[in-house]
Amino acid sequence: MPGAARFEVLVPPPADRSTRARLGRLELPHGSVETPIFMPVGTNATVKALHPDDLEDVGAQIVLANTYHLYLRPGHERIARLGGLHRFMGWDRPILTDSGGFQVVSLDDLNAIDDEGVTFRSHHDGSSHRFTPESSIAIQEALGADVAVAFDQPVPPSSTDPRDVAIATERTHRWAERSLAAHRRADQALFGVIQGGLDPDLRRRSTAAIAGLPFDGLNIGGLAGDETPAERAAVLDLVVPLLADDPRVRYLMGLGSPLDLLDAVHRGVDLFDSVLPARVARNAQAWVPGGRLNLRNEQFRDDPRPIQEGCRCLACRRFSRAYLAHLFRAGELLAYRLATCHNLTFTLDFMAEIRAALRAGTFPQRLPELRSLAAQKSRGEAAVQPA
Amino acid sequence: MPGAARFEVLVPPPADRSTRARLGRLELPHGSVETPIFMPVGTNATVKALHPDDLEDVGAQIVLANTYHLYLRPGHERIARLGGLHRFMGWDRPILTDSGGFQVVSLDDLNAIDDEGVTFRSHHDGSSHRFTPESSIAIQEALGADVAVAFDQPVPPSSTDPRDVAIATERTHRWAERSLAAHRRADQALFGVIQGGLDPDLRRRSTAAIAGLPFDGLNIGGLAGDETPAERAAVLDLVVPLLADDPRVRYLMGLGSPLDLLDAVHRGVDLFDSVLPARVARNAQAWVPGGRLNLRNEQFRDDPRPIQEGCRCLACRRFSRAYLAHLFRAGELLAYRLATCHNLTFTLDFMAEIRAALRAGTFPQRLPELRSLAAQKSRGEAAVQPA
Repeated sequence: MPGAARFEVLVPPPADRSTRARLGRLELPHGSVETPIFMPVGTNATVKALHPDDLEDVGAQIVLANTYHLYLRPGHERIARLGGLHRFMGWDRPILTDSGGFQVVSLDDLNAIDDEGVTFRSHHDGSSHRFTPESSIAIQEALGADVAVAFDQPVPPSSTDPRDVAIATERTHRWAERSLAAHRRADQALFGVIQGGLDPDLRRRSTAAIAGLPFDGLNIGGLAGDETPAERAAVLDLVVPLLADDPRVRYLMGLGSPLDLLDAVHRGVDLFDSVLPARVARNAQAWVPGGRLNLRNEQFRDDPRPIQEGCRCLACRRFSRAYLAHLFRAGELLAYRLATCHNLTFTLDFMAEIRAALRAGTFPQRLPELRSLAAQKSRGEAAVQPA
Repeated sequence: MPGAARFEVLVPPPADRSTRARLGRLELPHGSVETPIFMPVGTNATVKALHPDDLEDVGAQIVLANTYHLYLRPGHERIARLGGLHRFMGWDRPILTDSGGFQVVSLDDLNAIDDEGVTFRSHHDGSSHRFTPESSIAIQEALGADVAVAFDQPVPPSSTDPRDVAIATERTHRWAERSLAAHRRADQALFGVIQGGLDPDLRRRSTAAIAGLPFDGLNIGGLAGDETPAERAAVLDLVVPLLADDPRVRYLMGLGSPLDLLDAVHRGVDLFDSVLPARVARNAQAWVPGGRLNLRNEQFRDDPRPIQEGCRCLACRRFSRAYLAHLFRAGELLAYRLATCHNLTFTLDFMAEIRAALRAGTFPQRLPELRSLAAQKSRGEAAVQPA
C-alpha cells in the first residue's frame, strides 16, 4: 500500500454486536482526522461562502474538492504551478479529491463510456474532454490532495438496468487496478471504490475485488442517490461485515443529512461528504436539534433569539434569527456565510457527539437520543427552540 | 447643542496655510473616532459581504447605515424592538445614519417634494411613502445610531436649474430647524447639512445658516455627484474658510476614491463615506498603491503574488491573485468578501497614513507622495506590484 494514510481503530465495535460503529483516527500527510467525520465540500477549491478560518471554526478536519470542477477551471496544471491545492486555497489541513467519475457520468447525459475511459462535455462551454483512470490519477496527483480516489463508473442505484450495473461494476474493478498502477505520489493516499448497485451478489463481488487491492481506504460508492434508506442499509449491512477484519477506513460518498449520517455510522462507516448542509443553508434552511428552520419565514423577522440557543457558531455567537431573516430577504452575502457556518457547525458537532459516545462506550444506548437530535421536523411555522 | 458628540482638533492646520487639513478626534457614545476618517457604508445594516469582525480587521472606526433602506426593510420599529441598530447588526462601535433625503430624491424620479416633506415610492414594490424632517428624525432615533443627520433636499450640483438649487437650499434650512426641534435623544448627536450647489452666494448663505444652528457636526452636501474636481474644490475653498473658527467636525458625504479623499482632507474635511471601495471590489477591481487591478484579467490567473505585497488584509495575508482570479471567474462568494476587505483596508490604511502625516506635521511635504499612492492608474494588463 502506498502508505500515505494510516488508519487506526481506537474503539472497535462492541462484542455484543449492538452496533458496527467504531471510533478511529486517520493519519494523513497534512494532519490527523478523528472518525467518524463529515467532510465539507469545496467544489471549486472553496467551501461556498466560507474562508478557511471559518472551516477551522466550524470544526472541519478534512475537506473534499472536486477533480472534475478543478480540472475544467482553473485547471490542475495551473494549481500545480501555483504550489498545489493546499496552498492555492489556503487550507493547510487534509484534503481529499474525488475521482471525477461521478461528475462526468452524471452531469453530462451525452457522455460516452467505453472500457478505456469516459468522453464528456464541459458544463461551462460544451467542449469535449476525456477522463481515463490514468488521467484522473494524473490530475489528482497534480492537485496534490492528501487522498486521491480511484476512477470509477458510478450508476444510480435503483434506476439502472441490472446488466448495466454489472458492466459498470466490472469496469470499475479494471479501472481500480489501472488507477493503482498509474498512481505515483508517495505523499498521497489512494482510496478504491466499491460499486455493485443494490444487487447483493454484485456488491459482494465488488467488495472482494476492491478490498483485494492495496488501496489505503475503501469507498462505498453508488449510494446517497435514488435508493431508499432501507436499500442503503441493506447494502451497508452486506458490505461492512465482509470488511470486518479489514484494517482500512470506510467512506460512504455523498451522504449529508444528520439522520443518514447517524444510521451509516451505526452500520460501520467512518467517513462522509456532502454539499447538503451548505446548500440548504444558502437556501435559508438552518438545522437545529430535532428540526430545521426556514429563515425566510415571516415569524423569524421579529425573533430576537439565535438560530440555536447555546450554539458556538459564527451566526449564533452574535446574531438573531431576525437579523438572519433580514439578510436573506435583502439578499445580503453575509446571510450565506452565517447560515453555512451554522449548518456545518451543527453537522460537525453532531459527529463530535457521536465520537464522544463511541469513546465512552455509550453509543448504542444513546442512539434514540442521537436520532431525535438528528431528526429534521420542519419548524417553519412553529416555535422550535428547545428550552 | 445636544452634546452626544464632542470634537477636538488635536493638530490644527499650520499657520503657513500650506494646508487646511487637521487631525482630530470625535467622541461618540459608542467610542472615539480619529479624523480624518472614512466610513464604510452598511446600506442594509451590513457592509456588503463583510462580518463586523471584518470591519474591525480593515480598521473601520465608524460605519454609515441608510435610513431610507432600513425604514423600508426591515423597518425602523422592528429594529428598535430588537434593541436598536448596534445590537441588530452586531456592531458595537459608532454608527451614523444619513437622513434619507438623498435616496428619496434620487432613487425615485416620480417623487413629490413640497415644503412639508417628500412623498416617494419604495424601490421594492412601488408603494407610496412620505418623509418629513420630523419623520426622518423619528426613524433615526428608533434606529439609534450615534449620529443622526438633519433631513435635507440635495440636488445634483451642476445639472440643476439655479432657481431650483436656491429653492432646495432654503427649504433645507427650514428643514434643519425642524429636524433640530424634533430631535429628542440625548445619547444621539445630530449633524446639519450645508447645501447651496455650486453657486458661491448660495453656498455662503447656506454655510452661515446651518453653522448658525446648534448641530453637533456640519455636513457638506450636494457634492460627490456630477461636479468636476475643480468645482468641488471651489466649494470647499469657500465653505471651509467660513468655518475656520467653528469647533465642529466637517463631513463631506459620498466621496470615496483615494485621490478625492486626499484632496478634500487637504481642503479641511474630516469625515467621509462612500460605497465606492466596496462596490468596485465586488466588481473585481482591487486598489493598490498608485493603481488598480482588474482581477478578472487573464494575466492574474497565474500570478502567485498577493494583491498587494505587504498588505495586512484578509485577502493578502493568505491568498494569491491567481486564487482571487479563480474565485471571481467561478462566481464564488469568498471573492466578494476578500476583495472588499482589501479595498477597505487600502482606503482606511491610506487615511491612517494621512493622519500619521498630520500628527508628524509633515502632511504638506508628503502631499506629492500621498497623491502618487492614491493615483489609480489602471494596471489591468501590466505588471504593477511595486518592488
